Amino acid sequence: MAKKKDDAAKQAPYSLTELDKKTLKLIENTAIKVRSKILARNLPEMRFPTRSLSNVKYDAKVGYFELGRGTTGRTLTVNTVKNFAQTLRLMSISKEMVEGNDHATKREAYYVSKNWGECKFNDQPESDAVMDDIEALASLDGLTREQLRYRPEEHGGAVAGELVVVDRDRETGAPIEIDCTRLGSGSYSIPSDVERLQFKTAAKFVLAIETGGMYERLNEHKFWKKEHCILISTSGVPSRACRRFIRRLSDEKNIPVYAFVDCDPYGIANIYRTLKVGSGNAAHINQFFCVPRAQYLGLTPQDILDFKLEDATHPLQEVDVKRAKDALKNDPFFQAHKPWQKALEQMLKMGVRAEQQALAKWGLNFVIEQYLPKKLANRKGFLP
Amino acid sequence: MAKKKDDAAKQAPYSLTELDKKTLKLIENTAIKVRSKILARNLPEMRFPTRSLSNVKYDAKVGYFELGRGTTGRTLTVNTVKNFAQTLRLMSISKEMVEGNDHATKREAYYVSKNWGECKFNDQPESDAVMDDIEALASLDGLTREQLRYRPEEHGGAVAGELVVVDRDRETGAPIEIDCTRLGSGSYSIPSDVERLQFKTAAKFVLAIETGGMYERLNEHKFWKKEHCILISTSGVPSRACRRFIRRLSDEKNIPVYAFVDCDPYGIANIYRTLKVGSGNAAHINQFFCVPRAQYLGLTPQDILDFKLEDATHPLQEVDVKRAKDALKNDPFFQAHKPWQKALEQMLKMGVRAEQQALAKWGLNFVIEQYLPKKLANRKGFLP
Repeated sequence: MAKKKDDAAKQAPYSLTELDKKTLKLIENTAIKVRSKILARNLPEMRFPTRSLSNVKYDAKVGYFELGRGTTGRTLTVNTVKNFAQTLRLMSISKEMVEGNDHATKREAYYVSKNWGECKFNDQPESDAVMDDIEALASLDGLTREQLRYRPEEHGGAVAGELVVVDRDRETGAPIEIDCTRLGSGSYSIPSDVERLQFKTAAKFVLAIETGGMYERLNEHKFWKKEHCILISTSGVPSRACRRFIRRLSDEKNIPVYAFVDCDPYGIANIYRTLKVGSGNAAHINQFFCVPRAQYLGLTPQDILDFKLEDATHPLQEVDVKRAKDALKNDPFFQAHKPWQKALEQMLKMGVRAEQQALAKWGLNFVIEQYLPKKLANRKGFLP
Repeated sequence: MAKKKDDAAKQAPYSLTELDKKTLKLIENTAIKVRSKILARNLPEMRFPTRSLSNVKYDAKVGYFELGRGTTGRTLTVNTVKNFAQTLRLMSISKEMVEGNDHATKREAYYVSKNWGECKFNDQPESDAVMDDIEALASLDGLTREQLRYRPEEHGGAVAGELVVVDRDRETGAPIEIDCTRLGSGSYSIPSDVERLQFKTAAKFVLAIETGGMYERLNEHKFWKKEHCILISTSGVPSRACRRFIRRLSDEKNIPVYAFVDCDPYGIANIYRTLKVGSGNAAHINQFFCVPRAQYLGLTPQDILDFKLEDATHPLQEVDVKRAKDALKNDPFFQAHKPWQKALEQMLKMGVRAEQQALAKWGLNFVIEQYLPKKLANRKGFLP
């Protein structure tokens, strides 16, 4: 364990990355525009992309819900002055955090405002809305909210397998290599900001797994060694950090991503769909947080028949049926993919759902010995 | 990264630990008793500790809610035959898992039963109830459910700081050392079964932190290096694995545990109370899963005044008031500790709650530079 006489250790000045510089530029340019308008005795204005389903488009070739060109302006008036000032204040904190290599949660940002006098936020939805505007603005420059140094509160997901994550020591800048084959029964827990991580791997694919129980089984039995892969537990709908981690890893190392989730409308239309193309009401972030190359390994409705899981299923509830029908009727992703329409219609016809752990019916390690090898032998059969 | 020609690698036979042997003994003895009764043409019976609040006692010196001496018998009859068989079946799987060094979630155990014909569980509450009985039985021998190899589904918590976790390679039995100072902005994610982990540390204390955001701030700023401590993020009420990890670590290395949670009835009466003494309706597991030596660093109602956080508070909701009054009136833990009664009464009188992130009002790193050093300088002032 590192145990230096650390009190004397001086922290090396943080060296800005290219993206950090771009972030600072965006903030400075915004401030300069406002300032010059004011100096010219004109009313300053800020324009933000419109964040709503009406300003979203989906093109299967692009692979995710994209933000449209609509923008909403905010001119400085008596009514907008507080919001205007808050926006500039949050951007100013962002600048300080980039320069000082720090972060804040959205919650912390809200509390910081308590020291702003009249300008303070009254509740967090207020500060979140301002932050969403700033995030949408930054997204036009290819910058995430994490690069603005505002990070989510949620847990990031667990990783094991043939991957070395390369982080940097905050004080010295020296690389820190985390070998995800060397964590025993434990895992690498993804931090909330993964923008500065790098990767070393020769893995053949990433397996994104819905449940912690299934993930731990595959990790403990070193499925990653047998198949030369990387296991990632998403614990339900993957967090922003988890999706971004998978996206950056799969892009930079050019490795396929397979999703292994429950065969139910939630697993398909929420967990998988969010992983692959993002969500409708956060279109400004989908370009960063979706994994368009992801494919659906299973469970599929056909798997229930092929692996004789009928008596380990559960009847679809009303909410399941509604979700599946909604996906078929309203979701551009499912509308763009015929095989998915067939699969959802098959599920509705069968009237049942099945969890990935249902494979335990045939023995606890049936999933490792039979199910996954069979599915991986026919990757062309994966749903899109 | 380890990248051996692994297909040829043979797995070393798993060598049973002392606790594994004790677990097998318990299962075998139970089976032998049943078998000998049957062979003698008597009706076999199994007795399990009664799991209810009526069979719980609290002694501040012992430090946790203890299971009483009450037991409930189950004799083999026409009405109990299915349940009787299911109990023996689940114990039999447990035996196989100990021998094969495997695990199952409660969910998997439920699905395994789908192949038992008439004896299968109809829904999971049914299998959970049987498992709780077995767990309570094993607890009399000092054995956890994890030692029976049934593990929880929930996430275990994140760790960083001056700790080396020693795990074992599943195939070779060789030690794997995970240095929690070498994980960068990431963390060690606690597995669901921590019974076989060992620890190396010279840390001065464990800091158990409620929110992921606060944990990441302290980790990124290497608070653990400055104070020679171990940081653990509980993400709300700590999971079984997280509590057991802290308990084993603090017992075996004899280090104090300080809790840093929100100042509200949930943080105090749920998160902290569960960490310290366990919960009322699971008394058979408290001996393993509580951390009696834990102390409450903050936030306290007095902190709100001392650190001038009044305008970063929120009014207590009806549910908060109810929870605090319940704790004062019905909870043996709070009834045993006068300083806690005063603190809860002060909170009710002030009528507000405060989150740990509220300290950001005075700057994002006020918590590191001012709050924690001030609190740690007066550890005798911690609430019990």
